[in-house]
Amino acid sequence: MPQISVKGRQMPSSPVRKLVPYAESAKKRGTNIYQLNIGQPDIKTPEQAIAAVRNNSMEILEYSHSAGNESYRKKLVAHYNKLDMNLDIDDVIVSTGGSEALMFAMGSICDQGDEVIIPEPFYANYNGFATASGVAVKPIATNIENNFALPDIEAFENLITDRTKAILICNPGNPTGYLYTQEEMDKLAALVIKHDIFLVADEVYREFAYDGRVHHSVMNQAGLENHAIMIDSVSKRYSMCGARIGCMVSKNKEVVAAAMKFAQARLSPPTFAQIAAEAALDTPQSYFDEVIEEYIDRRDTLISGLKNIEGVQVANPGGAFYCVAQLPVEDADHFAQWLLESFEHEGETIMVAPAAGFYSTPGSGKNQIRIAYVLEKKSLIKAVEILEKALEAYKS
Amino acid sequence: MPQISVKGRQMPSSPVRKLVPYAESAKKRGTNIYQLNIGQPDIKTPEQAIAAVRNNSMEILEYSHSAGNESYRKKLVAHYNKLDMNLDIDDVIVSTGGSEALMFAMGSICDQGDEVIIPEPFYANYNGFATASGVAVKPIATNIENNFALPDIEAFENLITDRTKAILICNPGNPTGYLYTQEEMDKLAALVIKHDIFLVADEVYREFAYDGRVHHSVMNQAGLENHAIMIDSVSKRYSMCGARIGCMVSKNKEVVAAAMKFAQARLSPPTFAQIAAEAALDTPQSYFDEVIEEYIDRRDTLISGLKNIEGVQVANPGGAFYCVAQLPVEDADHFAQWLLESFEHEGETIMVAPAAGFYSTPGSGKNQIRIAYVLEKKSLIKAVEILEKALEAYKS
Repeated sequence: MPQISVKGRQMPSSPVRKLVPYAESAKKRGTNIYQLNIGQPDIKTPEQAIAAVRNNSMEILEYSHSAGNESYRKKLVAHYNKLDMNLDIDDVIVSTGGSEALMFAMGSICDQGDEVIIPEPFYANYNGFATASGVAVKPIATNIENNFALPDIEAFENLITDRTKAILICNPGNPTGYLYTQEEMDKLAALVIKHDIFLVADEVYREFAYDGRVHHSVMNQAGLENHAIMIDSVSKRYSMCGARIGCMVSKNKEVVAAAMKFAQARLSPPTFAQIAAEAALDTPQSYFDEVIEEYIDRRDTLISGLKNIEGVQVANPGGAFYCVAQLPVEDADHFAQWLLESFEHEGETIMVAPAAGFYSTPGSGKNQIRIAYVLEKKSLIKAVEILEKALEAYKS
Repeated sequence: MPQISVKGRQMPSSPVRKLVPYAESAKKRGTNIYQLNIGQPDIKTPEQAIAAVRNNSMEILEYSHSAGNESYRKKLVAHYNKLDMNLDIDDVIVSTGGSEALMFAMGSICDQGDEVIIPEPFYANYNGFATASGVAVKPIATNIENNFALPDIEAFENLITDRTKAILICNPGNPTGYLYTQEEMDKLAALVIKHDIFLVADEVYREFAYDGRVHHSVMNQAGLENHAIMIDSVSKRYSMCGARIGCMVSKNKEVVAAAMKFAQARLSPPTFAQIAAEAALDTPQSYFDEVIEEYIDRRDTLISGLKNIEGVQVANPGGAFYCVAQLPVEDADHFAQWLLESFEHEGETIMVAPAAGFYSTPGSGKNQIRIAYVLEKKSLIKAVEILEKALEAYKS
């Protein structure tokens, strides 16, 4: 047995995966589980995306261009330009999921030991990508009382050092569902220009903006051309998480040139999935209208249900399909495990993600959970009922 | 324009890609180019692999398990166990290409600043993965005179420090085509056990072993269970480079547990491609027999052609589909660019990879090129003829 330690550079465990063994045991006992822990939507993938792959006539499954198929990038840029992003195809590198786009961005703008400021709670895997890249995350607290809105810009400024390379936001936010206002975007833009750093915006939930709210992309921010990096993905937009197609977008030529070296080292993004992603761009607006309507209905069902449970506090998400709920428990990690190990209500229980993993400040979010409203309305009603019964039982 | 430098952590440029702009200009001039610079085979993908994707009946393109679909891992393990590897499915993490498997391995066993010893010339992207991971490559010279065989084991031992975490080999080698003997594998095994480090073997060309030679996998090395990590890929085996499916394999549970954290952070490998890879496992032996016969014929054509050119020295590859040739030029980088910019023979030229990028010792391999024999025999005959004419013209 090698004595050298396999530290895996202290990669954090995924907060949405560590409960999986308990869920498997519960399933073996015959318990039905409502899975609210991961963002795998139950929405159908647009038919033409899958059909395009079914109808492929290739004989050799070849590498694509390292930046992605040109035909896909062209169509993708046309899509972005309808959103007034004013891009050309050399501004886009197609990646293996949004995950890889984040790795490209971090690798391109940060050396080992450099720092990125991120409002917390944030998408837990940012911690993983930063750790893998040797980048230090500097969290900045947001709070549930004001729906996790942008903190005072001074709080960001106080964290900026000569190793700070970027501010990273997720807009709308996973896990918070918070959608940044134009005013907030303007403040961030002014700050990154002042300090000559980057603003990286993870916009993979862009279309999921509710109640008439408008999404403000980092790519639409005037004067920010050289400071803006957009992370995108087809996973949630078209309910095709398994494609593993995303992209990194920037008008800063140096950033794209650096990222291309990372892209070339791994050769190419997956070929079949690019065919699906290209076809998905033809998805009619009616698909999104239906999906958004469905998510608003689910959100309203979930949030009003949660608010009715005594002791539960919940932010009101303006976008994405997650919410963070604060529970009357001390340790949501323990509670989430208990839900799977020791509780059931009429043969059923729920699986949620303890929110502590979405914070990088130790001790933060310990009494919070993230709920993904990726199940149909009647399941969400049941899930809320189960949570209420569980909290009662857990107290005693 | 941000003043902060976009260093991209000094990622090396890909030696097989930097000539692409010159090739594009040559094509625009109407020059036909024989592309010998990249390992994209012209062999057809097994029909059932593509058919399985065509016949999919999914409605939602979902994430797979982070370690890959269980059905694929089961079948893959059965395949490996026919090669007496004695694996179970928890020893395998399906990755997005062999590239990602290498990143997982480096991330799992190395902290920033740790060292990996690699015989050079080696697959150029090892430099990129090491740079991205903050790992230092310690090269050890091999030479063309003895076909790039394993150097004296003392040379390895001299390089081992307390930061050395692994020896990495590519077997059979890209770019050398060298296939390690059982005796060489035994020496490496004894060394890594003695110093309590890992032996990482990139075996993506395993099936491409010629002239009755036998491939010796690191997974078949008795006593090495806790020290061995195998990197594999479907790209070359089934001529499906665009799938982006590989895997990392180890019987060391700590290594697999660490790698799983990296795998979970990026969620899952691509779903469509796993369907193709699973179906590809049913490829009959006759497919490989034909492919190997074809490659032997190509190799023999290429090598005997190269040997007939005055001043050209070439190693005899025992496996894979590359060879390194030493040319009577001072700077193969300049020569390769000149071939595309300033030369043509009857309207045609060749594109090769300058070998310097496959070395990490500065100045090494400057008069060498890598040729991928991924084109049919008659193209290779033409390519050799063009090289001969080009060398004559270049001299004057």
